[in-house]
Amino acid sequence: MTEPTIYKGLEGITAAATQIAEVDGQNGRLTLRGYDVSELSGNVTFEEVAYLLWNGNLPTQAEYDDLKAEMSAARSLPAPVMAALADLAPHASGMHILRMGASMLSIGDSEVDSLDLALAKRRAARLQAQMSAIVAHTYRLKNGLPIVESKPEHGLAAGFLYMLEGTEPDPARVDGLNAYMVAVSEHGLNVSTFCARVAISTDSDMVSGLTAAVGALKGPKHGGVPGPVLDMLRAIGTPQQTDTYIRSEMTAGRRIMGFGHRIYNVRDPRAALLSAAAEKMAALTGDYELLDLTKSVEQTTVSVLEELKPGRELYANVELYANVELYANVELYAALILHAVGVPSELFTPVFAVGRTAGWTAHMIEQLDGNRIIRPDSIYTGPRDLKWQPMDARH
Amino acid sequence: MTEPTIYKGLEGITAAATQIAEVDGQNGRLTLRGYDVSELSGNVTFEEVAYLLWNGNLPTQAEYDDLKAEMSAARSLPAPVMAALADLAPHASGMHILRMGASMLSIGDSEVDSLDLALAKRRAARLQAQMSAIVAHTYRLKNGLPIVESKPEHGLAAGFLYMLEGTEPDPARVDGLNAYMVAVSEHGLNVSTFCARVAISTDSDMVSGLTAAVGALKGPKHGGVPGPVLDMLRAIGTPQQTDTYIRSEMTAGRRIMGFGHRIYNVRDPRAALLSAAAEKMAALTGDYELLDLTKSVEQTTVSVLEELKPGRELYANVELYANVELYANVELYAALILHAVGVPSELFTPVFAVGRTAGWTAHMIEQLDGNRIIRPDSIYTGPRDLKWQPMDARH
Repeated sequence: MTEPTIYKGLEGITAAATQIAEVDGQNGRLTLRGYDVSELSGNVTFEEVAYLLWNGNLPTQAEYDDLKAEMSAARSLPAPVMAALADLAPHASGMHILRMGASMLSIGDSEVDSLDLALAKRRAARLQAQMSAIVAHTYRLKNGLPIVESKPEHGLAAGFLYMLEGTEPDPARVDGLNAYMVAVSEHGLNVSTFCARVAISTDSDMVSGLTAAVGALKGPKHGGVPGPVLDMLRAIGTPQQTDTYIRSEMTAGRRIMGFGHRIYNVRDPRAALLSAAAEKMAALTGDYELLDLTKSVEQTTVSVLEELKPGRELYANVELYANVELYANVELYAALILHAVGVPSELFTPVFAVGRTAGWTAHMIEQLDGNRIIRPDSIYTGPRDLKWQPMDARH
Repeated sequence: MTEPTIYKGLEGITAAATQIAEVDGQNGRLTLRGYDVSELSGNVTFEEVAYLLWNGNLPTQAEYDDLKAEMSAARSLPAPVMAALADLAPHASGMHILRMGASMLSIGDSEVDSLDLALAKRRAARLQAQMSAIVAHTYRLKNGLPIVESKPEHGLAAGFLYMLEGTEPDPARVDGLNAYMVAVSEHGLNVSTFCARVAISTDSDMVSGLTAAVGALKGPKHGGVPGPVLDMLRAIGTPQQTDTYIRSEMTAGRRIMGFGHRIYNVRDPRAALLSAAAEKMAALTGDYELLDLTKSVEQTTVSVLEELKPGRELYANVELYANVELYANVELYAALILHAVGVPSELFTPVFAVGRTAGWTAHMIEQLDGNRIIRPDSIYTGPRDLKWQPMDARH
């Protein structure tokens, strides 16, 4: 018997045909249900994109009104969930408390175990709204602040900032958060999305799949999360120090945060969206400091790499920088825009999760339609034919 | 460009080399770390098997004493977790409340995000103990009963029954539960186990992976769960009615609960273990009623299938019964033994989850050792080049 090939990371194995997103790494293009994300960004709200991901079409006015009503009502979390979050939030934060909150969202949904697809789409809208409420409320609970409920007229981005801060957010920040959440709403079969599909492949429920996805996203190896970029920007301080910093990091063989992507061989199209959104916000606020610093990091990194190319091995860790075209990924400008929107840095990953909930739930709906258990094989490589011995004979 | 093959369920794709369990479907053999499960069952406690799965060796007396002390202390859940479970349990049950409880187990573990393997093995022991406490406590909370803490000297099975019932369980029931949990402790790369490995493949934490696994196990298509078998036994009533029932179900093309397995082409080795354990319990209690009924179902199903073989298509749904050798799987006798142990039927799946926590955590430890992101590809089959239109132009 020949030994099977082991696909430890399942690279190169196609596990799904999807109609949700197309990620074109060669051309740096991301399309959602057939629409280029750059065409959507700025033209539509995050809720419209979420509706598109779930339903395959952008909403009409009547569909949009229904959607907003459903999401607005759902933002008011069930009382037992609020009570439990109040117990837990002083002792947990970040993705841990978000995982706990997500796990509770079957409460109040008497049909949560139904596999009906029409119900699933409405459930997706409610889960989307509830995730934003969990992030805002647990942050305030953690910090000893009273809970603020959003108003019915708030869209998701405005409602989130209102629940987080307790004051009406200005439109520039709402636009910035909308642009961010649209950019990260969906990105194909990444690990967290795959994890949600695996969980629900047993005909389990969407809350179970959502909770599984939050858990997978929590890992530091999951892409897209902008926390470390802000730490890097703070470490650099000013554009004058960028060149020294980048050269020193590369010489030490360390990764430059916010660069490189498994799929994109060119600049991540989401980096373009987010830098444009950041320019717009800076023009409104007059605060260009972090934007200028971020741009200097991108320019310097690209040009230092170029300069190192002929004899790169003299300076840099070969594995990291040999044969690699490094371009800005979504994380670089995400940090910038979330900071400009006023999201506390400990909420960067949870807010990413709120945006990605649209994609996770869309993939679960797609998985449920013609569902099939996702269960690869394994081979056993351990010992055989061992004999049990009583405890006092073991050593 | 040729279209890639789509492996929707990843069947036939080998995703891992594992040293934990070997499932030999041709010969009906299950080995755990090299020990035949039939050699372990009856000779060792569930904790010894769990230790074996985590560490690769059966514990010495000193290692066993350490393990029991760690598990015993961990059974006392952190106060915030108990408070949250009290808020939630009146509104959620079964696998939903277990998923919520599992999601909270990062609380009290200040090193939960550490990837250190020695810590991971100790964490596995604590999570194992905590899962049993969550099931017992939430059942009592749901039923308005006061919480009962277990005693330090209780092993996992005895402690679970004590926390559940508030009285010292008799040794025959403790032995029965031990035999059950040993039998279901681990079964290779099933969906829930794979889901845990996917979640932690981003270097996420074991609580996230455990919660993801609970969510995947919750789905009715996940094998191993004995609830429907007990419903079937109740519907049959007495051995005299078995023949009529089985023939009628087969003629209607319905699945007989407790038979057939994706991997085993012979009788599931765990069915043998559990029927032996059930015989032992019946001899002690003198109650043979359900055992005799279950045996009649197994004998009748196998013999009716044999009888139908030449012209099976006359009687039975071809897809279900043509070319299929149907043998009892783990579910058939699991229902029987859990019922005999006194586990309420709504806790059958949660108690399965408690047993399988040993395997889930062992696989996460294995995954963390040389971890690599599990991320298959997908192909896009949806529309392209759609143009955004303002809301009032959509229809």
